[in-house]
Amino acid sequence: QYSTGVRKVTLIPGHGIGPEITVAVQKIFEAAKVPIEWDEVDVTAVRGPDGKFGIPQKAIDSVNANKIGLKGPLMTPVGKGYRSLNLALRKEFDLYANVRPCKSLDGIKTLYDNVDVVTIRENTEGEYSGIEHEIVDGVVQSIKLITEEASKRVAEFAFQFARDNKRKKVTAVHKANIMRMSDGLFLRCCRDLATKYPDIKFEERYLDTVCLNMVQDPSKFDVLVMPNLYGDIMSDMCSGLVGGLGLTPSGNIGKNGALFESVHGTAPDIAGKDMANPTALLLSSIMMLRHMQLNEHADRVQNACYEVLREGKALTGDLGGTAKCSEYTNAIISKLN
Amino acid sequence: QYSTGVRKVTLIPGHGIGPEITVAVQKIFEAAKVPIEWDEVDVTAVRGPDGKFGIPQKAIDSVNANKIGLKGPLMTPVGKGYRSLNLALRKEFDLYANVRPCKSLDGIKTLYDNVDVVTIRENTEGEYSGIEHEIVDGVVQSIKLITEEASKRVAEFAFQFARDNKRKKVTAVHKANIMRMSDGLFLRCCRDLATKYPDIKFEERYLDTVCLNMVQDPSKFDVLVMPNLYGDIMSDMCSGLVGGLGLTPSGNIGKNGALFESVHGTAPDIAGKDMANPTALLLSSIMMLRHMQLNEHADRVQNACYEVLREGKALTGDLGGTAKCSEYTNAIISKLN
Ligand SMILES: CC(C)[C@H](C(=O)O)[C@@H](O)C(=O)O
Ligand SMILES: CC(C)[C@H](C(=O)O)[C@@H](O)C(=O)O
Repeated sequence: QYSTGVRKVTLIPGHGIGPEITVAVQKIFEAAKVPIEWDEVDVTAVRGPDGKFGIPQKAIDSVNANKIGLKGPLMTPVGKGYRSLNLALRKEFDLYANVRPCKSLDGIKTLYDNVDVVTIRENTEGEYSGIEHEIVDGVVQSIKLITEEASKRVAEFAFQFARDNKRKKVTAVHKANIMRMSDGLFLRCCRDLATKYPDIKFEERYLDTVCLNMVQDPSKFDVLVMPNLYGDIMSDMCSGLVGGLGLTPSGNIGKNGALFESVHGTAPDIAGKDMANPTALLLSSIMMLRHMQLNEHADRVQNACYEVLREGKALTGDLGGTAKCSEYTNAIISKLN
Repeated sequence: QYSTGVRKVTLIPGHGIGPEITVAVQKIFEAAKVPIEWDEVDVTAVRGPDGKFGIPQKAIDSVNANKIGLKGPLMTPVGKGYRSLNLALRKEFDLYANVRPCKSLDGIKTLYDNVDVVTIRENTEGEYSGIEHEIVDGVVQSIKLITEEASKRVAEFAFQFARDNKRKKVTAVHKANIMRMSDGLFLRCCRDLATKYPDIKFEERYLDTVCLNMVQDPSKFDVLVMPNLYGDIMSDMCSGLVGGLGLTPSGNIGKNGALFESVHGTAPDIAGKDMANPTALLLSSIMMLRHMQLNEHADRVQNACYEVLREGKALTGDLGGTAKCSEYTNAIISKLN
């Protein structure tokens, strides 16, 4: 799938703290001699021929050429005509599976120990269809769209992910007791796929029950697969269990490309002050390396990052430390071996 | 609204452990001399003239006459033609606001201290509209229906609830960044009502952010108001923070009636064995007493219940104790003063 030697990766630094956390990752990758060449592009919204704002063509071309990218947080201007650029990217490249691993990190104290779950979220339809109507004044309908095609491919992705990563169980999360046809279809696709992966345990659970059980005992869960909105909620909730969006990676995977991103905000209040925490973007870039089968490089960078967090001597402000972003970055570099 | 003297209350013991936890509440109320007369009805599904299964007419008549009821868990048979009886009851009486307080209890150890949040859930529409179609083979749409009328009344309910209960803040929970029209309408209704309750702080937050923040620091929240499905999720999640569905009450409030219920399951495995924990139903019945302005009785029963939990000497099996349901009940009765 990838050429050998140095591989080109589209780099979207993004807005706010995006550029500085991107520089942190670039420095660490350089020090770790990761065989990657960055193709940096800007995705600040531009007005298209239809008058709507969207992703610049140059960025689209780059991702289409490289088939893989890393992106920082994006700021979508508020107001009519603007759609979320994050969503636009997922849609443009048909990145149908959103993978968010949440794992307790040594050195990061939360109420929970030993969380180790992966949320796999259908990333293209469901409640995110964008189809809405005002039927009469004061009566609005939004359409949740569930297709067999999208449900099957994300279910298959989840089971294959579980197998590839030596995971034991996939839980399908649904409300088929309420949305019998739509969630029912999603659930049936998961059941079908389950029969093709007899090595992976399969269970199905109501979304509300999963939320309740997750906050009581996350060790009940392993890999979770679910429709779009449920994944949006569950992944943020699980992220909260291990320290928040500043510490959890994310990957959007499609048939013809993949985009790894930190899902926290642009934090304009601290932007440009060398105060941001680049961990989420770094962990996302490590996911990316594994996706590119650069596992040795991934392990090396990950070990260095984990060690700095464990030691707790060079943490950024959001983690209770006093280190600058650049100091944290250098600490990680010093641990590369 | 209610006649003075002894008031009639519809009692729906329900299935599984329902009857025994109902007896527990009845015994405690009798010992506490609560001025209530129970009108017991059965709601096991019966086949209606249309061939579909539903609530027996006698139960409907009773709730219509008494305007207030207490119910245990119901078992809805699985299969075609059956709709959830729980949902059917909410719908039949247009019980538009579902109120679920989740409060840390002394003696019940969880990861969280000092949780004190109230979820107010729109209970009649949203993702629970029941409108679904298969457009073509393998393509299903479910309709989320949001109306101004239902959004306004639940928003007003939330603010009034906050004021009546000396709460400080209402948070509207939404995904209006995605469902701009439907959640947007809901949010606008909340904003409108907020201006009429200047004594109550108002904030609006994304559902995913609330999930993340709630597991990290529940003290950030007070009263939360949201569309149907979001309330289903959030209330279960919050319940998990304080010990689960066996310990959290629920009330469904409408213009012409109110139904208080435990929202846990029927637990058929332990049914009839005097092992069930009646706390959720008891706390629901205490909510009911407050709704009937029987506050002194509510306080008395509540204090007795809280003291038994705090002492920890007569807890049921689900709470790590060895007491029978009847022993726990008697312990509460012995604390009434
Ligand atoms: C920014 C927002 C549109 C997005 C979503 O709702 O999917 C975000 O919450 C996420 O999870 O990536
Ligand atoms: C039993 C089920 C239909 C119901 C719901 O989804 O509302 C339950 O989860 C609840 O919260 O009362």
